[in-house]
Amino acid sequence: MTTGARRRMGVEERREQLISVALDHFSHRSPEDVSIDEIAEAAGISRPLVYHYFPGEQQLYEAALRRAADELTARFVEPHEGPLGPRLLRVMERFFDFVDEHGPGFSALMRGGPAIGSGRTGALIEGVRQAAYEQILAHLEVTAPPPRLTLVVRSWVSLAETTALLWLDDRRVPRGELERQLVHDFAALASVSAAYDDGMADIVRAFLAKEPPDGMFADLTARLLALAPQRI
Amino acid sequence: MTTGARRRMGVEERREQLISVALDHFSHRSPEDVSIDEIAEAAGISRPLVYHYFPGEQQLYEAALRRAADELTARFVEPHEGPLGPRLLRVMERFFDFVDEHGPGFSALMRGGPAIGSGRTGALIEGVRQAAYEQILAHLEVTAPPPRLTLVVRSWVSLAETTALLWLDDRRVPRGELERQLVHDFAALASVSAAYDDGMADIVRAFLAKEPPDGMFADLTARLLALAPQRI
Repeated sequence: MTTGARRRMGVEERREQLISVALDHFSHRSPEDVSIDEIAEAAGISRPLVYHYFPGEQQLYEAALRRAADELTARFVEPHEGPLGPRLLRVMERFFDFVDEHGPGFSALMRGGPAIGSGRTGALIEGVRQAAYEQILAHLEVTAPPPRLTLVVRSWVSLAETTALLWLDDRRVPRGELERQLVHDFAALASVSAAYDDGMADIVRAFLAKEPPDGMFADLTARLLALAPQRI
Repeated sequence: MTTGARRRMGVEERREQLISVALDHFSHRSPEDVSIDEIAEAAGISRPLVYHYFPGEQQLYEAALRRAADELTARFVEPHEGPLGPRLLRVMERFFDFVDEHGPGFSALMRGGPAIGSGRTGALIEGVRQAAYEQILAHLEVTAPPPRLTLVVRSWVSLAETTALLWLDDRRVPRGELERQLVHDFAALASVSAAYDDGMADIVRAFLAKEPPDGMFADLTARLLALAPQRI
């Protein structure tokens, strides 16, 4: 019994090690350019032994992707304390940490990535987007989102993805600036929708009311006013 | 010579007809659910004859996609007259016309679509995004875009895509509202970036200066001010 339990544990440990090694490789180079041989070598085992733990490259890739998806989803979790702006900013900082750590793999995956297993990898990505969406709704304390809020939050999640991908291309704009910009973008997109819809206006007023008078959104508002051609 | 010229014309015409039939099918149902048999039947020819014009399903799909990409790109063209807001609004109207006409195919394609030919279809989609990006720069009269403008324009193009995809899911928010919202979103995203960068501020001030005092951006500004907790 003890030996049997140990042996099963060993298999799990080996699988976890291979997933870690694979994820590390996929994070530094496009998954398409990483061979099973390299992963086997880095793990210190033979290529056939890799296939003992994962029937094929696709299964190992998916397992690594699942690990990455879980890791990213965990970084979205932020205590419901204090104003919304700094909460979102902390999440954006952790999101860019993740993007920074997994750059080439993140790019390859989000731009269509390896043809292998596109259905399941697509579902994993959708799961991460859904988690991000649900976190934002929870921070807004909205349980039954009106369609316009769903649109704003989901489209902002996609904006964060795109911004991170564009940042990875050349890193010309400092990431700290983009993290703050994305938080401002959320307020801006929600406010644009709120400008023409009463339900959205209630939601936006509720979170703006909790912002401090010297907070990041007040700073943005003052700066935006300075841009307008006619002061009102 | 005449007969030969005619025969070549006939092949081209038949190819064009098959592309039209395929695009029509792919516009109403996910391309994965459309068989060559259906396309052959709708075109009034035999299945083997389809393969005479297109070596495989993938080639026909790509040809239909190329036609759609050209069509969409053509709709981005807008005269450089009058203020920017209404120009972008007309482009958004034509974009949503396109999305409306090709709904299921557009969704399937943009969400990863058929596994077939992902590399080339990806390049076609990127080409459309690039065309949209260049059109916006031309309207802004910017020839050497600073990195922050590139980020704003490219991320807004992706926002327009996402918004259209989300709209197709349930069409709960009227498309006319989203077309206007996306134009406002462009101004909002550019302004957020401009709030913290002088180069962007010059670009935003340049296009806002050409907006009429009773135009769509002035209306948005007034409504946004009404949302702010502290009037400044």
